[in-house]
Amino acid sequence: MVADPSTTIRFLLASRQCELNSLHYLLQSGELVGKISQLVHMLQRERGSSNLFLCSDGRLFADELTLREQEVALAQVPLMAHLEKLETMTADLPQASRLFSRVASVVYALGLLPTLRQQIRQRLLQQPQAMDFFNDIIRNLLSLVFEVSDTATEPVISRALIAMFSFMQGKELAGQERAIGAAAFAVGEFNEATRLKLMDLIERQERCFDTFADFTDEENRQRWLQIATDSDFERLRRIACTRSSTEKLPEEGSLRWFAIATQRIDEMKQVEDHLELTLMQLCRTRITAAKQACSEQMADIESLMSQQGHDDPGYSVFIAGHDMAGHALDGQRTPNGWLSSDGLRPQLGRSLLSLVQQQSRRLQTLDHELAALRDTLNERKHIDRAKSLLMQHRGLSEEDAYKTLRRMAMNQNKKLIEIATAMLAVADVFQDTP
Amino acid sequence: MVADPSTTIRFLLASRQCELNSLHYLLQSGELVGKISQLVHMLQRERGSSNLFLCSDGRLFADELTLREQEVALAQVPLMAHLEKLETMTADLPQASRLFSRVASVVYALGLLPTLRQQIRQRLLQQPQAMDFFNDIIRNLLSLVFEVSDTATEPVISRALIAMFSFMQGKELAGQERAIGAAAFAVGEFNEATRLKLMDLIERQERCFDTFADFTDEENRQRWLQIATDSDFERLRRIACTRSSTEKLPEEGSLRWFAIATQRIDEMKQVEDHLELTLMQLCRTRITAAKQACSEQMADIESLMSQQGHDDPGYSVFIAGHDMAGHALDGQRTPNGWLSSDGLRPQLGRSLLSLVQQQSRRLQTLDHELAALRDTLNERKHIDRAKSLLMQHRGLSEEDAYKTLRRMAMNQNKKLIEIATAMLAVADVFQDTP
Repeated sequence: MVADPSTTIRFLLASRQCELNSLHYLLQSGELVGKISQLVHMLQRERGSSNLFLCSDGRLFADELTLREQEVALAQVPLMAHLEKLETMTADLPQASRLFSRVASVVYALGLLPTLRQQIRQRLLQQPQAMDFFNDIIRNLLSLVFEVSDTATEPVISRALIAMFSFMQGKELAGQERAIGAAAFAVGEFNEATRLKLMDLIERQERCFDTFADFTDEENRQRWLQIATDSDFERLRRIACTRSSTEKLPEEGSLRWFAIATQRIDEMKQVEDHLELTLMQLCRTRITAAKQACSEQMADIESLMSQQGHDDPGYSVFIAGHDMAGHALDGQRTPNGWLSSDGLRPQLGRSLLSLVQQQSRRLQTLDHELAALRDTLNERKHIDRAKSLLMQHRGLSEEDAYKTLRRMAMNQNKKLIEIATAMLAVADVFQDTP
Repeated sequence: MVADPSTTIRFLLASRQCELNSLHYLLQSGELVGKISQLVHMLQRERGSSNLFLCSDGRLFADELTLREQEVALAQVPLMAHLEKLETMTADLPQASRLFSRVASVVYALGLLPTLRQQIRQRLLQQPQAMDFFNDIIRNLLSLVFEVSDTATEPVISRALIAMFSFMQGKELAGQERAIGAAAFAVGEFNEATRLKLMDLIERQERCFDTFADFTDEENRQRWLQIATDSDFERLRRIACTRSSTEKLPEEGSLRWFAIATQRIDEMKQVEDHLELTLMQLCRTRITAAKQACSEQMADIESLMSQQGHDDPGYSVFIAGHDMAGHALDGQRTPNGWLSSDGLRPQLGRSLLSLVQQQSRRLQTLDHELAALRDTLNERKHIDRAKSLLMQHRGLSEEDAYKTLRRMAMNQNKKLIEIATAMLAVADVFQDTP
């Protein structure tokens, strides 16, 4: 291989081709996220029905449980098939290591379902414990979505993925709110711990939907706003968060709360489906545009090469003609610091330089946009890691770890991310303890 | 594919295998960086000789030029062969797009060499212009090293790459200092512009070597300290930066400066060679360790599976035995928030859970370390991008763009990176201008 224009062109085209490859990979990721969204929704339903079944000592929702199980099984099939495909497709990507580790966690968690269901049926589990299992499975699925969002290499699609992920997370918190509210209505009592838990879930939901609204497009933001302003649900929320005892007929109140919360969550799923469509559409549009750009570039190059003639494969035009005209080279410096020069037949020289520059500049811009987006994701990563440090070394549950971080932040009047970062800065102290 | 232990294990092993793959990729990257280091060193030599040749109106170094050209040609062969291999090896990586774009720039820049040499021989170029061409070629090669460092997925190796890259950059600035000093000694005069340029090069060198020292190991740091404290060279630097006129025999002074600066740069190359060895050694050690971990994990899994027996492929042990013993599930929550449970034959269940957790936690730790390292690289990226914005939209040279940023930083008593970030925050303003 020699350093000539045709080698330059070869690598330029290879660079374009890789962009196209990673867009195809993103399209696949979009499909994966869609399948996860579907399975999570079904698991949320099953969790809701299981909760009511356990809270009512098996009087309510026994039949629904079977239906919910079937829905989950149905949604699980395409996801598992996709994961199988993923293994063969992405084994060469460096980030695949993390991706597969997440998949292992998801598969492990899903494997717990049959036994979990058996124990729910036999009412061997209490509602909070059954709920913890479901939360854990869903948390693993959402982590997989986060992983996919984190590795996106296209800013526009990365934004759509962040919007989708934030929305899914908000919806999951809404699902947890539904479950805890339903359980409390069922026993007819909202104690202090339940109220705090509900308020926490509401606050975290709002933060997720704020992030979603920051990153999504106008159309989907409008779709969300229509749901977000449901006064019936807000009235029930107020009852849950302010009164200690509720209606005379707890079971009825529980079912009413459950029905209204379910309607809200189902509407969320519709927005989520739109988000998925938007994501896929963006991928397809970007792929079409990238293919177009690829073939335009190809045509440009072919036309340049044929003008240049096949007998002159070198760069002689670049600097050569230059001094014959007596120009100082300084004047030939292009604004962005690349060297160029006039020549006898400068078409290829200048056009090639401009192609190399264009590609380099475009990728630099993309990379910078991605870096900015990554800050958003890194915040979550830092908080996650600080949480997991606390869980590991203090034996705390995820919820308690989160609360500990938040309490420290409130006490010091700092942001959660600041506390998390501070904790990670001294992580070595934790690492050394066995 | 179903959600059972064997699928979990399959993805765990796939995750390990991907880690191993990316270590092999890093080993290749280390080789690439070594080849670039060699070529850059030869180009620096050729630049030095060309400068003296042009400054002496062709009286000095005419014979050396041929030798230098041959050395460059010799160093170029293995690099070009490596780039060819790279194209087939990494086409599937998402970051390959940026990598290939950089390679296209490198190949383009190297293609300018033959014509550049011809014009130097014929003394059709002045020394500063010839030097600009060489600087530009080397800058492109260093950008390729930066790209490789930026995509490293292993913190230890990433540190070694950052150390190596910073050192190479410092050495290049030392090379530019040698050239500018030699030219000024040759005419026997150091005007204000030259003095400022030299002081700037010295200051930027020091910053590069500071970063190098932060990231390298103790042994290599010591190697560098032995060179850094050369009093002869410092004395000549002082003369260059403080006096306006120098010795009576400018040519002699120029050769002396060139000889001493060359000795220093050759010593730097020796340190750089050690850095390369260290880098390769780290890659090989990590590969051996990863292979070891892989086969240990394999052995663990085989032993677990054989204990479990082939007739029970499911997770029934996980939750099943649990309630028979009448334990509350709450107590079974592992410290890091994963769900587990005791069972009749809990070995596989607990061990599998712990394997899944270990891998997930280890990758999380690696990822966090990498994120911290990436901050170092992002600073450079931000400054580069702010520079390129200025170059593009104000038609400035790279040097002037850098100076503009620095002047703004000094005027506002801020760090360079703060100004760069501020400029990028308002980049849209620039983007819109045609």
